[in-house]
Amino acid sequence: MIIDCHGHYTTAPKSLEDWRNRQIAGIKDRSVSPRAADLKISDDELRETIEANQLKLMRQRGSDLTIFSPRASFMAHHIGDFQVSSTWAAICNELCYRVSQLFPDHFIPAAMLPQSPGVAPETCIAELERCVRQYGNVGINLNPDPSGGHWNSPPLSDRHWYPIYEKMVEYDIPAMIHVSTSCNACFHTTGAHYINADTTAFMQCLTSDLFKDFPTLRFIIPHGGGAAPYHWGRYRGLAQELKKPLLKDHLLNNIFFDTCVYHQPGIDLLTRVIPVDNILFASEMIGAVRGIDPETGFHYDDTRRYIEASTQLSPAQKQQIYEGNARRVFPRLDAALTSKGK
Amino acid sequence: MIIDCHGHYTTAPKSLEDWRNRQIAGIKDRSVSPRAADLKISDDELRETIEANQLKLMRQRGSDLTIFSPRASFMAHHIGDFQVSSTWAAICNELCYRVSQLFPDHFIPAAMLPQSPGVAPETCIAELERCVRQYGNVGINLNPDPSGGHWNSPPLSDRHWYPIYEKMVEYDIPAMIHVSTSCNACFHTTGAHYINADTTAFMQCLTSDLFKDFPTLRFIIPHGGGAAPYHWGRYRGLAQELKKPLLKDHLLNNIFFDTCVYHQPGIDLLTRVIPVDNILFASEMIGAVRGIDPETGFHYDDTRRYIEASTQLSPAQKQQIYEGNARRVFPRLDAALTSKGK
Repeated sequence: MIIDCHGHYTTAPKSLEDWRNRQIAGIKDRSVSPRAADLKISDDELRETIEANQLKLMRQRGSDLTIFSPRASFMAHHIGDFQVSSTWAAICNELCYRVSQLFPDHFIPAAMLPQSPGVAPETCIAELERCVRQYGNVGINLNPDPSGGHWNSPPLSDRHWYPIYEKMVEYDIPAMIHVSTSCNACFHTTGAHYINADTTAFMQCLTSDLFKDFPTLRFIIPHGGGAAPYHWGRYRGLAQELKKPLLKDHLLNNIFFDTCVYHQPGIDLLTRVIPVDNILFASEMIGAVRGIDPETGFHYDDTRRYIEASTQLSPAQKQQIYEGNARRVFPRLDAALTSKGK
Repeated sequence: MIIDCHGHYTTAPKSLEDWRNRQIAGIKDRSVSPRAADLKISDDELRETIEANQLKLMRQRGSDLTIFSPRASFMAHHIGDFQVSSTWAAICNELCYRVSQLFPDHFIPAAMLPQSPGVAPETCIAELERCVRQYGNVGINLNPDPSGGHWNSPPLSDRHWYPIYEKMVEYDIPAMIHVSTSCNACFHTTGAHYINADTTAFMQCLTSDLFKDFPTLRFIIPHGGGAAPYHWGRYRGLAQELKKPLLKDHLLNNIFFDTCVYHQPGIDLLTRVIPVDNILFASEMIGAVRGIDPETGFHYDDTRRYIEASTQLSPAQKQQIYEGNARRVFPRLDAALTSKGK
């Protein structure tokens, strides 16, 4: 079985975007604010957007199950206040839940949180609980920078975030650390802000003792861990200067990297540097990079090909990356699969 | 000959830091402001700090010449106003110049600029001209974020920066794109801010047509190009989505990466992905990572060992990385060496 731990609902019906635009317009002019109930998307519409896109590609590429969360760049936690984020998160999470109900063998949901700049993270807990208890979400996406590129929240190691972590530990769910759209002109969203956030989150963990306080807390750093694996020597050296334990002891019981690295040399570096136990298969399909690589003739984000072509990984290690690690890092996913006899 | 294109004067006498601390205190209380002339550092002091540190390690490791600039983390352009930066840059650049005069075979200077947040970059030109004309500087360090982690300057592709670029083209000098200390708690200076800035700068160039306006402008993206080589497939794919030319045509006539990547797999990725023409030897020694790697028994930043150990590079390619590319990217360095018969 091949589990893709990083997929977003980037292909939702246009009416979702229209609703969101009306919601945004309503921030300035409340008379145009839509109600949540104004958004009507039928099961057939959901089916179409999935069958023609994610599911089609999953079948072509041979992946079986996607951990599916709302479109990352549309989370846009910087827009409006907590109430705006709250309504928006509830809508987006419900859609991913419905997709998981329509295609229970192929999608299982992970939740976005109704974060809002300057608002205490504990305000997100009601939505988190709803998503885990009612919707069967197996993980969350946590945005370390709800401002969208201004980076004015405390680092992930700050107690500011602890209420979220306590709930994650209670439910035994991991968080993917994933920012949203950049509204800072310096940072291109998918080319700079995403990758920078990954690197930043990794370093925030490295300089702290967060995992002493939460020994079972688990973070997935997406996009292959940002720059961390490429600069693994730098990070080992910085940990050493800071008198931290070896990275494998200091961070690798708690931090995992996905395989959203869109070329063979990058995947080869990742699998050469990072222990196999810490690598989870993912494509972020359909996402930031949708084209076909002229150098290979295949889609950049068809990451399974890079794993398959790896000469460093044994078949057992590949299976670990495809399935075993995801089931370990997402115990609720494992339980859901086990209950189906998978 | 082995040229290290990225060295900072991180070992300057303590009196420099003391002077700077007084200068900073003087921002609030002008009565304690020191004059530039209050800083007295003898040639012997300079010699000692270099001979016992950079030069000793250069001899041990077998590099011959370092392109030497003021300590990056001490540039701290966010402190004070333009006048504060201006005085500080003049002092730091003069020290690097003096080092180059004391050790003319081993050091040649590159200038920091007196940047200041919100101040037009053209204010830096007088110092740039002084450094090139009087001090024989062969390049500059350009800080894309003088705020120190708040990223509120326009991207490098903005006309805001063009006066600097015009002067760089006139003098035929490259810029290393190098931030300074982070004063944003989210970003560890050398573990996150430096690497993020590299990735950000690369992406700012990718999304723009800067090098159409300045076909001969040359940037060195330090620290192995941040995350760019590791995510080269992502960047090729994003360029494709943005209808830009292939990266080799769009960026690689103008952008170069140094070898400040502190482990063998990272250097192997860099040399596998990036054309040899675009890689310049560097160590950033003595810098952020000063320890000995327990996995190798050698210093993390002894980057020559990784180049030597590369099985991908021919001897001629190694020589290009060590010397040929630096002489091409820094024509004033080449001229200085040629005039000495080197």
